[in-house]
Parts: sequence; structure tokens; C-alpha cells
Amino acid sequence: MGKKQKVEAVTPMNEDFARWYTDVISKTELVDYSPVKGFMVIRPYGYAIWENIQKEYDKRFKETGHQNMYFPLLIPESLLKKEAEHVEGFAPEVAWVTHGGGKELAERLCIRPTSETIICSMYSKWLNTYRQLPFKYNQWCSVVRWEKTTRPFLRTSEFLWQEGHTLHETYDEAQEETMQMLDIYRDVAEEYLAIPMVVGKKSEKEKFAGAYSTYTMEALMHDGQALQSGTSHNLGQHFTKAFEISYLDRENNQANPYHTSWGISTRLIGAIIMVHGDDNGLVLPPKIAPTQLVIIPIAQHKEGVLDAAYEIKNSLKEKFRVELDDMDGYTPGWKFNQWEMKGVPIRLEIGPRDIEEGQCILARRDTGEKVQVSLEDLATTIEKLLDEIQDNMYQKALNMREQKTSIAEDMNEFKDNLTKNPGFIKAMWCGSRECEDKIKDETGATLRCVPFEQEVIGDGTCVCCREKANDMAYFARAY
Amino acid sequence: MGKKQKVEAVTPMNEDFARWYTDVISKTELVDYSPVKGFMVIRPYGYAIWENIQKEYDKRFKETGHQNMYFPLLIPESLLKKEAEHVEGFAPEVAWVTHGGGKELAERLCIRPTSETIICSMYSKWLNTYRQLPFKYNQWCSVVRWEKTTRPFLRTSEFLWQEGHTLHETYDEAQEETMQMLDIYRDVAEEYLAIPMVVGKKSEKEKFAGAYSTYTMEALMHDGQALQSGTSHNLGQHFTKAFEISYLDRENNQANPYHTSWGISTRLIGAIIMVHGDDNGLVLPPKIAPTQLVIIPIAQHKEGVLDAAYEIKNSLKEKFRVELDDMDGYTPGWKFNQWEMKGVPIRLEIGPRDIEEGQCILARRDTGEKVQVSLEDLATTIEKLLDEIQDNMYQKALNMREQKTSIAEDMNEFKDNLTKNPGFIKAMWCGSRECEDKIKDETGATLRCVPFEQEVIGDGTCVCCREKANDMAYFARAY
Ligand SMILES: [Zn+2]
Ligand SMILES: [Zn+2]
Repeated sequence: MGKKQKVEAVTPMNEDFARWYTDVISKTELVDYSPVKGFMVIRPYGYAIWENIQKEYDKRFKETGHQNMYFPLLIPESLLKKEAEHVEGFAPEVAWVTHGGGKELAERLCIRPTSETIICSMYSKWLNTYRQLPFKYNQWCSVVRWEKTTRPFLRTSEFLWQEGHTLHETYDEAQEETMQMLDIYRDVAEEYLAIPMVVGKKSEKEKFAGAYSTYTMEALMHDGQALQSGTSHNLGQHFTKAFEISYLDRENNQANPYHTSWGISTRLIGAIIMVHGDDNGLVLPPKIAPTQLVIIPIAQHKEGVLDAAYEIKNSLKEKFRVELDDMDGYTPGWKFNQWEMKGVPIRLEIGPRDIEEGQCILARRDTGEKVQVSLEDLATTIEKLLDEIQDNMYQKALNMREQKTSIAEDMNEFKDNLTKNPGFIKAMWCGSRECEDKIKDETGATLRCVPFEQEVIGDGTCVCCREKANDMAYFARAY
Repeated sequence: MGKKQKVEAVTPMNEDFARWYTDVISKTELVDYSPVKGFMVIRPYGYAIWENIQKEYDKRFKETGHQNMYFPLLIPESLLKKEAEHVEGFAPEVAWVTHGGGKELAERLCIRPTSETIICSMYSKWLNTYRQLPFKYNQWCSVVRWEKTTRPFLRTSEFLWQEGHTLHETYDEAQEETMQMLDIYRDVAEEYLAIPMVVGKKSEKEKFAGAYSTYTMEALMHDGQALQSGTSHNLGQHFTKAFEISYLDRENNQANPYHTSWGISTRLIGAIIMVHGDDNGLVLPPKIAPTQLVIIPIAQHKEGVLDAAYEIKNSLKEKFRVELDDMDGYTPGWKFNQWEMKGVPIRLEIGPRDIEEGQCILARRDTGEKVQVSLEDLATTIEKLLDEIQDNMYQKALNMREQKTSIAEDMNEFKDNLTKNPGFIKAMWCGSRECEDKIKDETGATLRCVPFEQEVIGDGTCVCCREKANDMAYFARAY
């Protein structure tokens, strides 16, 4: 950490996307590797993004009548095993606690990979009558799923998330809840994270272990790979029957409620990085950027410059998340690069001449564009500019996705597209597991979802078996 | 769950305090027991209190320049063992993960009982130069400490907390930080939770495993037992040396930084219950009550009553946390009891005659007092009343503590006080471990702290050995 240290460039995206990603997350100090393989440390800059994401989702959950709780970290093996599909899906990747308080435990306990089982065991205790329904609860916590190969934010053996768990009287209500939460996921992702999402239903193969049906939002990264970014499950009565959750219904009969669960995680930070980032580093959407605007004084040793910079900071700090970089020993150029790397949406430059002329310079991170603006109505200008950046980032991401989305009528076209323009491939699918598996085997692309917004591709026959198909699906290689 | 169900009373406090506590937490649905012994489920009402506590502390941490992070849940055994006193203190109560992803692990991992070790291992990687200091980071998470006997909020095998971990150039700065955080703990506890705290230093015996010195805030419960409610540790260089955290100092030499850590937990909810509660249930301080005011319509089937109640709710909901209980099939009397049990600071009653006369009734939870007030300036009246309740609750708790605090000059007086008026006993202490142990053996009381606010009791000799003593200490039986 000497003086005037040069900001090292990151590996260019097109050269090696995986290295670009690793460079960006380490240089911006979002995250670090921990002494336990596959576990990450989320550093302040990364955590501040997470707090901003959390805040908005939590607000929406509460607005729609959900309350937060906290359930135990550890789940007895016998509970995990109660729902057959669920244990089959999760048992291979859990961590087991075998000793506690100096003794071997009578029954081993797993660290929650997700909390359906422990929550259902409590719900069965709490629910008695239809008058108590719906149950609409959520929990923010960390979960552990042992992974062989990991990548910070995208796939780690521990991650932070929220998991909502609700109970309803009818299937329709559960379905409505499942859709409502998916819609909140998509809405915040698009409006706050500026990431356009494809929403739809997972195939039987890809659905959550124990779900009746799973819905997903899928984003497309810069390298043409998809990222599952949030899922919402209609769990039907699978768990409520297995856990004997029953209640006296309106007709005075014992009934099992219908059940949903839904989650988003720190994975979303990975999406932000890989959708918006560029060869100069991160580009953060203003609505969730920990710092929305950084002030960099030019010739800060000259009389009045720092004073003017502080005055500007003070006038803006109520309205925006502002930093002032007055560090000695670094050139403005170095600071420009440094804050660009960090993805701060606006840089404000102020030097002796600007002060004389009652103006300053605003530089946009998303376009690189610089404008001279008056100090007079600075707050209004900045507010407008942040909105513009937010909108532009969404539009840019949407264009990128559209550019990387193609259609395929047969397998040759499918493979060709995947090579020449990696991204989403829209294709007809007959609904069979055989075709889904074959496509994956031959191309590496998985069925991301059957989108709600349907269209007919080509002659409407399955891209794989060429039988009649009812559904158009999105395929992609995925994280 | 039939109609017009009667609210069952809780066990009176003076009859059986432990049962009173258990009754209150279950009837108010703050918490429940989980299928894993010693682990609790924090239910929405309990969690909402925690969120309000968190919010205020988090704000204060950020105002004093701390940032949040997230460190891994699991700590390798070898890391835990690096600081000798620390491992001795914590190893007996940790939970061990021995298997993950279907395989036995090469090294077993403990679930964090606290994170000094894993955090120090990261700090040693991050710190290079004095220019980076201080490090001021905090984490909100859950920790696991295997306990034999547990009681919700007070002592459970898992609990929620925050742990701050800072590094500094000098001992004095570390000491200043330690004191600042203790002061923030006390300030929020007194101002928000309305709980008066005794602040001071722990004895060598009671200090944190691996600390140079531990400071504490101690509260007194209704049954005369003390509750350690927050601790702040000056860790000196114990961990920074063990973990080889070093940096280039201002003189260009390698140096080990000075280190602090500090934490508060969901235990504070236990303190709120046991300091303010009464035989009708919870009494919540307005500043952290999830519901500050509940509106109960009287004769709600009569025309206009529910409309008026909703109108009042709408006019108040921006400013206060308001509920309207319009449930059918329950008498107002039942509802009064129910909301009293939940500890809601103000109950607003509105019936047909009130509406005619443009007034309503406000009933205080803390005193039971009822006043008729005009609907005209209702918000102002409520605001004032909430402040009054908050102040009164603090004053009441302070009076309770003072009443239960006595002085003892010798062991006979000490034992006598502890029997006749259980609570804090202020007594001189020579500073020896022998006397501290003897007092505990003979009375069950532990040394809670040597308070910052000193006074001389009697002739200034140790209450136990009657040698000259320099310190006055607080003793009590404790949770
Ligand atoms: Zn097919
Ligand atoms: Zn003595």
C-alpha cells in the first residue's frame, strides 16, 4: 500500500469471463475467500449492497402482510427425512453436526439447507383452525449446502437468503401467493437491480425437491449464461401431509393446508456484477449502490477546493449516499479509476476553476459521459441523472439480453446458436423428460423455464423430437 | 380456538417467577420451543421486537463509523485452538460438524460460538499498513453454544446477536472504542428499552475467554436476579499476536494492532420481559413495541363504530405503529385482556357515545390509568402519552432496582440481604479470586461488575476477608 499506487486493470471480459469476475470481486473488496473451502466472507461493500437489496424486499414482504420469524439453524435427521423427495434432493449436500457440548449426539442434526421441514414441524403445532389462516411468514438467515465447486455469490457452501413459508386454505390461494411473490421478486429485480427477468415455470426435472410446481426468474449474464435469480414454489400438500399439519376447516372437517415457499439470495449480487459490469469493473444501479455519488476534488491542496468539496457533500448527504475522496497522495486520475472500479454511478469533479465559475463536472459510470453543471440546482440535476442512469442500465441490460436471445427450430440451429451467440434459446418443447435430458447432454443447455409469455416458434414442433409441442421454453447454459 | 375464549391468566410473579416467565412468553407468542432441545423459534411478535432493537443499535454503530460484514458460520478446529484461553473457554460448548456433502471432513468444523478466530484469520490477510486502521466492523448473525439447561431468550443453544470486531493502532484507542460501544449499549438500553443499567468492569474470573478486560452492562430483574445484558471487550493483543495480525506502523516497524469485540443479543428481550412485565403479562416500552397503540371498538356492530375506528387508525398510522382489533366473536373485555397480555402501551377505546361526543378513551398499560380525550388533537395527545409511558417505565424500573439494591459490610449482612431483599448487593472487594469464589460458594451470588461509579461501603474493608479493599463491586445471583 504505497503512495499513488496504480489501479491494476481487471482481465478483459472477452478474454476470460471467469477471471474477469474473480478480478472484479476481489479488487472491489466485495467478498473474500475464507479458511473453510467454499465459504465466503462478505466484505462491507458487498454487504452494503445486500442490505439495500434486503431493505426493499423486506418492505415489500411486509406490505403484502408477511411477518419475519427466526427458526433454528439445526434440523434433526428424522425431520429432514419426512418428505421423501425433499430428503432425496437435499441429503447429499447437507453438513452434519454429530457432537455438541462435548458429547456425541443421540441423533445427528443437519445445518439447514432450507427450512421447510423444521418450519412445518412448528406449523403443525400452531395451526388449529381455518380462522388462523393464512400463515404468512418469512425468515432472513444463512443456509449451508455443501458444494464441490464454488464461486463467490453464485455457488457457495453457505449463503445468505430469505425464505418465505406460507399456508393457505385452498390450492388457488397458495397458487396466488406463489405468483405474487414471484412478481415481487421480478419487480424489485427489474426496478432496483435494473436486471430484466424472464419469468416462468420450471420443468419437473428442475423443480424444487418436494414442490408441486416451481416458478423462477432467470437473468442472462454478459457471457450468455443464465442465472436462476429467485424461485417461488407451490408446494401443494406434500409437506403438510407428511408433517401432519391439519386444521378444522369451515365445514368442521380436518384438512391439510396448501403450502408455498420462496427465496432470493446473495446470488443476486452475482447477477448485478455479471449483468452490468464492464472492463473497468463494477457498474452499480443507483437504487442499490452503497455510494451513489463520489466527490473528487481536483488540485485539492489549492485554497478553497476542499472547503467547496465538503460544502457540496454536506448539501447532498441528506438526499443521496455520498462519499468525498480527500485521500492525500493519490492523483485524481487514480481516484477516478478506483471509483469506476467500484461502480459508483456518478463522479463529481470539482477544481479551482469550477469553483470560480460556480460549476462542477458530473461523470456517469454507465456511459462515461461527462457534463458540466451549475452548482445552483445540483441536487435536482443529480436526482434526474441518477434516474436516467437507472433507466439506461435497465435498457442496456434488456438490449444485451435481446441480442443474446435467439430462436431454434431444430437441434442444428440450437447448437449453432449456442456456439455463435451464447445466450437464451427459445424453442418449442414437447414436455418430455427425454428431450430435456437429450438437449442437456448434447449442448450443455438446461431448460431454464417455460415462460408465462408464450409464442410459437417455427412449425410448433419440439426442437428435439419434432413431435407436436404445446410449450415454448427458454434454454441456456447456466450458473 | 372457540368463540369468546377467555384469556387465561398467567401464574402470578410472586408465586413462581420462572413459571410466570414461561407463561408470558408462550401466551404472547414471543417464542416457542423447537424439536431440537435447547433451540428456540422466535415468533413474529418476538422477532418484531428484535428488529426494533436491531434497528436502533445498527443505526448507532453506523453513526460511529462501523460497517457490517458477514463471516462464515463454520470455523476449523485449528483456528479455534490458536488462542489458548479462548479455546479453553469455548471448546466445551461448541457443536461440531464432522460430515459434509456425504463425506467425513478432514478437519472438523465448529459452528461459531463467537467469531474472533475466523475474523482474526481474515484480518491478518487484509491488514498491511497503519493507514488502513482502524478496522471497525460488525456482524449480525446467530451463534451456537451448547447449553445443558436453557430458557428462551436468556440461555439457549442458539441465539441471535451482533458482534463488533475492531482493530486499532494503540491500546488507548482500543480502550476508547471498548468504552464507546459499552456506552452505546447502555444508552439504547436505557433510552429505548427503558432498562437502567449498571456499567462496569468484569473480574478476571468473569471476563471473556481471551480478553484483556471485559466491561458489562447489568440489569436487575423483577425477581432480584441480575442479567448480563451486553459486554464490550478490550482484547489487547492476545488474538492479534496469536493470529499474527501485523502491519507496518508509522515508524515503519511491524506491529500487532489492538483489538476489541462487543456484543448484545436476543437476551435483551428477556430483560424487557423480566424488568417491565407484571401479572397481566408483558409491558413493552413504546419505543420498541411492535404495536404502540391498539384500537378496540366498543359495540362494533352498531352503525358508524367501525367506520370511526378505521378513520382513527388511518389518521394515526403514519405516525405510530397502530393495530385495530375488529375481530368478531370476542367481547371488548376479552380483547382488553389479550392486548394487555401483549404489553401494548396504549389501548384506545371508541364506542357509539364517544363518537357522538367527539372523544375516545386512552388506557395506559404501564399504570392502568384511563383518560377521556378529544378526537381533535389525538395524535399530539398520543405522542405525549407515549413519551410519558416511556419515561415512567424507566423511572419505575429504576425505583425497582434501587429498592432491590442494598449494601453489605460483612458476610452476615450479605446473606441476610440476599434472603430478605434479593437483588444487587454493593460491597467492598479486595480484588482476590479467593474472596470472589467464597462469596459465590456461600451465597450463590456472583460478582457482576466493579462499577465505574464507585463509593466506599462501611469501613472500606473487603466484605469477605475484611482486608483493605480498593473496589466496590455489585454482587447478585444471576441468570
Ligand atoms: Zn420432444
Ligand atoms: Zn477479600
